Amino acid sequence: MTPSGSFYLSFSLSLVLGLLCLLFVTCWSFVWRGGVGWDGSYLEFNWHPVLMVSGLVVLYGIAAVVYRVPSTWSQKKSTWKLVHGGLMLLALLLSALGLCAVFDFHRAASIPDMYSLHSWVGLCTVLLFAFQWLLGLAGFLLPCSPPGFRSRLKPVHIWLGSMVLILSLTSCISGINEKLIFTLNGKTNESYNSLPLEAKFANFLGILIVAFGMVVLRILSKEEWRRPETEETAFPLLDGNRT
Amino acid sequence: MTPSGSFYLSFSLSLVLGLLCLLFVTCWSFVWRGGVGWDGSYLEFNWHPVLMVSGLVVLYGIAAVVYRVPSTWSQKKSTWKLVHGGLMLLALLLSALGLCAVFDFHRAASIPDMYSLHSWVGLCTVLLFAFQWLLGLAGFLLPCSPPGFRSRLKPVHIWLGSMVLILSLTSCISGINEKLIFTLNGKTNESYNSLPLEAKFANFLGILIVAFGMVVLRILSKEEWRRPETEETAFPLLDGNRT
Repeated sequence: MTPSGSFYLSFSLSLVLGLLCLLFVTCWSFVWRGGVGWDGSYLEFNWHPVLMVSGLVVLYGIAAVVYRVPSTWSQKKSTWKLVHGGLMLLALLLSALGLCAVFDFHRAASIPDMYSLHSWVGLCTVLLFAFQWLLGLAGFLLPCSPPGFRSRLKPVHIWLGSMVLILSLTSCISGINEKLIFTLNGKTNESYNSLPLEAKFANFLGILIVAFGMVVLRILSKEEWRRPETEETAFPLLDGNRT
Repeated sequence: MTPSGSFYLSFSLSLVLGLLCLLFVTCWSFVWRGGVGWDGSYLEFNWHPVLMVSGLVVLYGIAAVVYRVPSTWSQKKSTWKLVHGGLMLLALLLSALGLCAVFDFHRAASIPDMYSLHSWVGLCTVLLFAFQWLLGLAGFLLPCSPPGFRSRLKPVHIWLGSMVLILSLTSCISGINEKLIFTLNGKTNESYNSLPLEAKFANFLGILIVAFGMVVLRILSKEEWRRPETEETAFPLLDGNRT
């Protein structure tokens, strides 16, 4: 198979797994948890897994690899810089909204915030993501960034991007596990350790998230799938002198 | 700073963080959880976090990067292949023992096995680690492995090695979170959400584990820190014709 063919196979797999993650997290919230709302009730909490999986995992992962699609290499890099940065901004906004949902639910139900390890790792993930996005904006889009800073930033940006995804996976797995313990335990016939259908379904969502993350990280790790460097790359996108 | 100097800085940081992880997980088991034993009681369970953090995270991470220490590059690669493979085997045995501890504890206390997402991801991690070790043995140590297989295996081995570490981090974070929920909730004055000292301490252990993993993955991601290829590399270690 050609390098391009094997890329498209991996990319298609990531799209299928990403769609399955979205389908599963939505089904979990609607079929077993009563759907979503924005009223401070548990329905508001249900936005939390939906938005975190959609924004911090699926959209983030797709936005990270969209840069590598070979058919885009003949097009202007600046366009794909904007697509990459724009999708990442949307992912960040969805994640921030997902945090708002859980903080709002906690406030209404008088549940303390930020005590579990899941919440500590999760908040670090979103803060690191925001820092990474701002660093990317400063380094690759704003004209005032010195070329030396940009070239030093690029490998850090790529590595930090993978770290955010790894932390996202960790946050999601610990979060799904925590939610299932809190929700199912206490119920006599459907405790977590009796593995009712909801538990199997949400555990499988966790496995799908891990599989999606592994495929995306595989794509990011392949040097030969990186967009080739061109002279255009050396200049920030928003440099007026270059337009 | 020279490339070698910055490697040693990162390597030292990974050693310090690894030692802190070992110290923290041992303190957690001894100071708050009553120590360890092998009698089917909760003391046997306490071996589980100690062995998983020691084997699946710290020893695994150090074994992964030991190959990259520049001062070993002038020495025979075969020696360091054995050190790498030997440390990995020890890490795998500690992890397997850690699984035995929790299964034995569950059996004695009549608690079902393998229901939580933590247990699903954790078991996948150890199985993937065992598969990776056997693949490494077959590809890089046994003389019967074809050279073509070995050269195709190398990038997969490096990528899969990082994936095992990422899954280890995910398993540890979800496991610490689960253990704190089960242990602290139900206690009136020390529930998890009131963040007693044990919760802060174990959460901080989780952050140390994540930090250790990030430093190790940073070392693994740097192309220029890879041991340079030599003619010796092209032959499996246990090839009698080469000794």
